[in-house]
Amino acid sequence: MAHIIYADHAATTQLDTAALSAMMPYLTDLYGNPSAPYSAALAPKEALRQARQTIAACIGADADEIFFTGGGTESNNWAIKGTAFAGDFPAPIVTSAIEHHSVLAPCAALQRLGCSLTRLPATAEGIVTDTALEQHLPQGTKLVSVMLANNELGTVQPISSLAAIAHRHGALFHTDAVAAIGRMPLDVKALDVDLLSASAHKFGGPKGVGFLYIKRGTPIAPLLDGGAQENGLRAGTENVPAIVGMAAALQHRTTDIGAHRAHLSHLTAHFLEGLQAAGISFIRHGTEDTLPGLLSLAFPSIEAEALLHRLDLLGITVSAGAACNGTATTTSHVLQAIGLSEEEAASTIRVSFGYTNTKEDVSAFIAALQSILF
Amino acid sequence: MAHIIYADHAATTQLDTAALSAMMPYLTDLYGNPSAPYSAALAPKEALRQARQTIAACIGADADEIFFTGGGTESNNWAIKGTAFAGDFPAPIVTSAIEHHSVLAPCAALQRLGCSLTRLPATAEGIVTDTALEQHLPQGTKLVSVMLANNELGTVQPISSLAAIAHRHGALFHTDAVAAIGRMPLDVKALDVDLLSASAHKFGGPKGVGFLYIKRGTPIAPLLDGGAQENGLRAGTENVPAIVGMAAALQHRTTDIGAHRAHLSHLTAHFLEGLQAAGISFIRHGTEDTLPGLLSLAFPSIEAEALLHRLDLLGITVSAGAACNGTATTTSHVLQAIGLSEEEAASTIRVSFGYTNTKEDVSAFIAALQSILF
Repeated sequence: MAHIIYADHAATTQLDTAALSAMMPYLTDLYGNPSAPYSAALAPKEALRQARQTIAACIGADADEIFFTGGGTESNNWAIKGTAFAGDFPAPIVTSAIEHHSVLAPCAALQRLGCSLTRLPATAEGIVTDTALEQHLPQGTKLVSVMLANNELGTVQPISSLAAIAHRHGALFHTDAVAAIGRMPLDVKALDVDLLSASAHKFGGPKGVGFLYIKRGTPIAPLLDGGAQENGLRAGTENVPAIVGMAAALQHRTTDIGAHRAHLSHLTAHFLEGLQAAGISFIRHGTEDTLPGLLSLAFPSIEAEALLHRLDLLGITVSAGAACNGTATTTSHVLQAIGLSEEEAASTIRVSFGYTNTKEDVSAFIAALQSILF
Repeated sequence: MAHIIYADHAATTQLDTAALSAMMPYLTDLYGNPSAPYSAALAPKEALRQARQTIAACIGADADEIFFTGGGTESNNWAIKGTAFAGDFPAPIVTSAIEHHSVLAPCAALQRLGCSLTRLPATAEGIVTDTALEQHLPQGTKLVSVMLANNELGTVQPISSLAAIAHRHGALFHTDAVAAIGRMPLDVKALDVDLLSASAHKFGGPKGVGFLYIKRGTPIAPLLDGGAQENGLRAGTENVPAIVGMAAALQHRTTDIGAHRAHLSHLTAHFLEGLQAAGISFIRHGTEDTLPGLLSLAFPSIEAEALLHRLDLLGITVSAGAACNGTATTTSHVLQAIGLSEEEAASTIRVSFGYTNTKEDVSAFIAALQSILF
């Protein structure tokens, strides 16, 4: 990429150099199929074992509770469809109105197959409350799925108390942690979740790989049926290089999580102060304590699409919502769910700073906004 | 890997150096999310477009009929479950007894959900005949799935005539081409299939990526629901580096397919002649015109497991069946389906030579067999 100030880390991140280095041996010499019974399989098999152990340690799980997948979308699809198809079918599902499409769409697919579907509302600040779940939890609900943090707003959801309510009513609890992981400390035991989804390329790992945490004993059917990989629950030759890269990136982020968060919070503060100092009027959506570095901002004087384009021409990369809707012109369902008008939503951009951004990036960003808005 | 003679190319292959070179820019600088509406997305988006075009050209398809997936297992699961869940459900499915687990297992999963399932028999030579399909094609069958070539025997199936029968009875036809692609010329129009699965790491591409050919107009539901990627049919951030590597590897294999096949046939002939010259008794399973370089061989004087282990100690890597069953001790369902006894199956190994093997490799292999068997 030409020199740009990349501030769309919630869409994807550059692969950490340490992750790429860790991957290279498995992209070259150590290519053996890890499921094979010969010596060429030993190093890849051991790499998988270590990666599973590393990832488990990063989220407070045991290694046998980590299942490698092809990414966040597969993890979410598997968590939702896999629990739906295990045991009684169809059964009610509860999710929220501010979930990522990779949660909403599999829920809708199950609804078409006969499962009742409830989408919990969010507050104007972008929070799915305990009260909302208490009021909308149908008898016999099998799964409640609420994201750990929202990918457009950065709002962190009260997962441990939502999970407690779900469990009290006999439901499993899944959380999509794709936006959150790497930006906040994460412990599956403290969260009290049964399933947790993650995607490597959002935290400095490679694209095309993710994982699903499945608490031991959780009833779940495979989404990908076939060979005996991943304890018989996720078939397909293991993507060893990508899995190794994911583990290296997650370890990097988790080890430095305090410093990483402080850096991102510092960039955020610098950005907000800079906007105010420059006299740029804006509205920030969401709560005060969102994920560090992730901001949903409306600039009422300009359409987001035009602003994005002009920033892009100045070498600054931000987005107007989830990347997978980048080419669509529909209003974000998340911004609608928190009660924004179409006009307000249409003037909203998402800024997501990352590990590699600097204070200078932020200053240049402010200067670019000044040149566009005045 | 230490210097070994790797003859398990049907399990996985080393990544082509040209493929890795093609991937590197997308593993480093060109990391933008291809679905995003800004300049950082342009190069990745263009890379996807070119890769889709390249792959389409390699198999006689149009670019909009190629859908990128996370591998062969996902492609097979999607083809089978995606057609089953589109339109009337449940409906009969027909497959064969010699399919890969990633076909048999999703069929079995659908059977548990109420679809009638027929597994066509194979001949003693490992062929699924037209007669078998004519005799076992239930009224209202929605999908017939028979592999292009068997991964354990190398036997090439009469796909175009099987597809014609399926079509005459109003069924769709899917072929798992994972074992075949890169070892034989392939044209989806000539094969007359509606769906075709492939996995990159079997033909010199990276692990964790594959594709599904879907003939334009074929009714299919997504397996991974979510974002609008892959024309709304396969959600998830596109794995750009891996897709680029897959296209490079397939182009390499397809361009050289004549020379590649001649090389593999030559190695096979040299191997069989060497065995005979050395006075090693063996039985070759399957037909005469299997995929070049892939041999299923029984050495009646020794258990395959012991032979594998001793070859491994001598630096020669072969397998006893599909790699995903590598750690299992059960008899291959393919060898059972062609009528082998447990004893015969237990003395059978699979040798799969590849692009990088040499005549010297084959001679060393023969010498190793001599030292073990005599």
